[in-house]
Amino acid sequence: MDRTPDWIAVDWGTSNVRAWAMTAAGEVLAEATSDKGMGKLSREEFEPALLDLIGGWGPGPHRVVACGMVGARQGWIEAPYARVPGPPLPQGLTMAPTTAPGLSFGIVPGLCQMDPADVMRGEETKVAGFLALHPGWDGTLLLPGTHPKWISVSAGEVVGFRTSLTGELFAALSGHTVLRHSVTTHGWDDAAFEAGVAEGLARPEALMNRLFGLRAESLLKGLQPPEARARLSGLLIGADLAGARAWWLGARVALLGAGDLMDTWRAALRSQGVQPEEADATQATLAGLTEAWRRSQ
Amino acid sequence: MDRTPDWIAVDWGTSNVRAWAMTAAGEVLAEATSDKGMGKLSREEFEPALLDLIGGWGPGPHRVVACGMVGARQGWIEAPYARVPGPPLPQGLTMAPTTAPGLSFGIVPGLCQMDPADVMRGEETKVAGFLALHPGWDGTLLLPGTHPKWISVSAGEVVGFRTSLTGELFAALSGHTVLRHSVTTHGWDDAAFEAGVAEGLARPEALMNRLFGLRAESLLKGLQPPEARARLSGLLIGADLAGARAWWLGARVALLGAGDLMDTWRAALRSQGVQPEEADATQATLAGLTEAWRRSQ
Repeated sequence: MDRTPDWIAVDWGTSNVRAWAMTAAGEVLAEATSDKGMGKLSREEFEPALLDLIGGWGPGPHRVVACGMVGARQGWIEAPYARVPGPPLPQGLTMAPTTAPGLSFGIVPGLCQMDPADVMRGEETKVAGFLALHPGWDGTLLLPGTHPKWISVSAGEVVGFRTSLTGELFAALSGHTVLRHSVTTHGWDDAAFEAGVAEGLARPEALMNRLFGLRAESLLKGLQPPEARARLSGLLIGADLAGARAWWLGARVALLGAGDLMDTWRAALRSQGVQPEEADATQATLAGLTEAWRRSQ
Repeated sequence: MDRTPDWIAVDWGTSNVRAWAMTAAGEVLAEATSDKGMGKLSREEFEPALLDLIGGWGPGPHRVVACGMVGARQGWIEAPYARVPGPPLPQGLTMAPTTAPGLSFGIVPGLCQMDPADVMRGEETKVAGFLALHPGWDGTLLLPGTHPKWISVSAGEVVGFRTSLTGELFAALSGHTVLRHSVTTHGWDDAAFEAGVAEGLARPEALMNRLFGLRAESLLKGLQPPEARARLSGLLIGADLAGARAWWLGARVALLGAGDLMDTWRAALRSQGVQPEEADATQATLAGLTEAWRRSQ
């Protein structure tokens, strides 16, 4: 790298950490990733993991602005939640204790909702970045993932949000129940997915039975593993859509994510007549961290 | 044991196997159990496992009548399913290949339902035994378990049935998702359970979100692990009750099972104004196997 970054952006999740060397103008000079996610580190291991990651980016001083699970109770330091309704990025960063000379590490607050109880860490930065890139946007942001989040945005604020266990439930059912004999880890069938979405949405109360039904159909009717996998995904996403109906029916919806999950959720929404806008999660994260850095100047 | 049994009853499940030395009059002379369930055995290991189990019961000849997963495709030999509607114990046993002199091993058929697709192996024997002990009983039998079964019985036949993944889903969520941080493996709270049942029954479409809500409430509101565990169980059972409404609302219901799960389901049904009759699963299994043995004479 030719020059020392003006600041460093960090997205530190449970499984991975990603850093960008930034200029004040918002240019990305370099990027680094590692698998030293929050879930693998004790408190005193965060600073060494960070220094490993950004070691090639000059001697510093380094000002870091970070989001994600690094600010959880089990993270480097707990960054208190801000409450919604409110802006996605309230003023103020929580500074982690550092020992390296010239290193500062500020964490943006997560957001919480008291009723129904809900929390986010990291997604608030994506929302802020999305709004920086789409000023004045109102509607529902849907962030696919292990814990998909429906986030209602109006007048630059987060009005409320709704997290579901859908993605993690899919993994637990596929890997740790009798359904592991009926679904593949790969393979897909679009028609089976759409049938699952329709069924999950129309009859969410039948879910407990429909899940076992996948096993029964594979025994009795030769339901193939790729079909079973797609139908399972569809049933769960359909059940999520049923509970989240008020968030997407007749609403402006934007999908904010990356990869295969975008395809899955786009197909689910389109099957219900919703044509979602789409935005890239990494760009949104960077734009949000840039916003947080500017405000902390 | 003073005398050689006239026949041997065996309930061979996925995890365990249980055998009873019986007289022709239906008296139990001795009992043996082992953890050599179907899930741990290859085809050629069934006969040695059986001989280990009944080794103390004299030189034979031994006539065995068995039910359960021993008759699954991955079991000793596949015992074809009989279709419902129909009697719980149709004529005919599937004979497993044996090599020990004087040993015969007959397996009762499982039951299947084509639409919606569903299967049972072992429960049909409990139903037959329950009906032998309660002649003329009509109504819904509920068999709690990893895969709870609602079984509609009329005029001595199984009219239809409905299996759900409720119990296994509880285990997968408690052990293999983020909820493992919020629930205990022990501990219970009756009020939290009933609140969960009410919520799961009233709003099954909210389940995906309510599951994550358990995590959020433990972070934000100090929801305690025993409460979270009971509420999780309640939410899933409530969702099952929602889908199975036609099976219990205004119906005569009998719980057929054993142990803690009986308490759990009894409480769930009573919270909805249903006062279930109750019967012991082991007695029903023995009565059903006795019925199958008599008919095979």
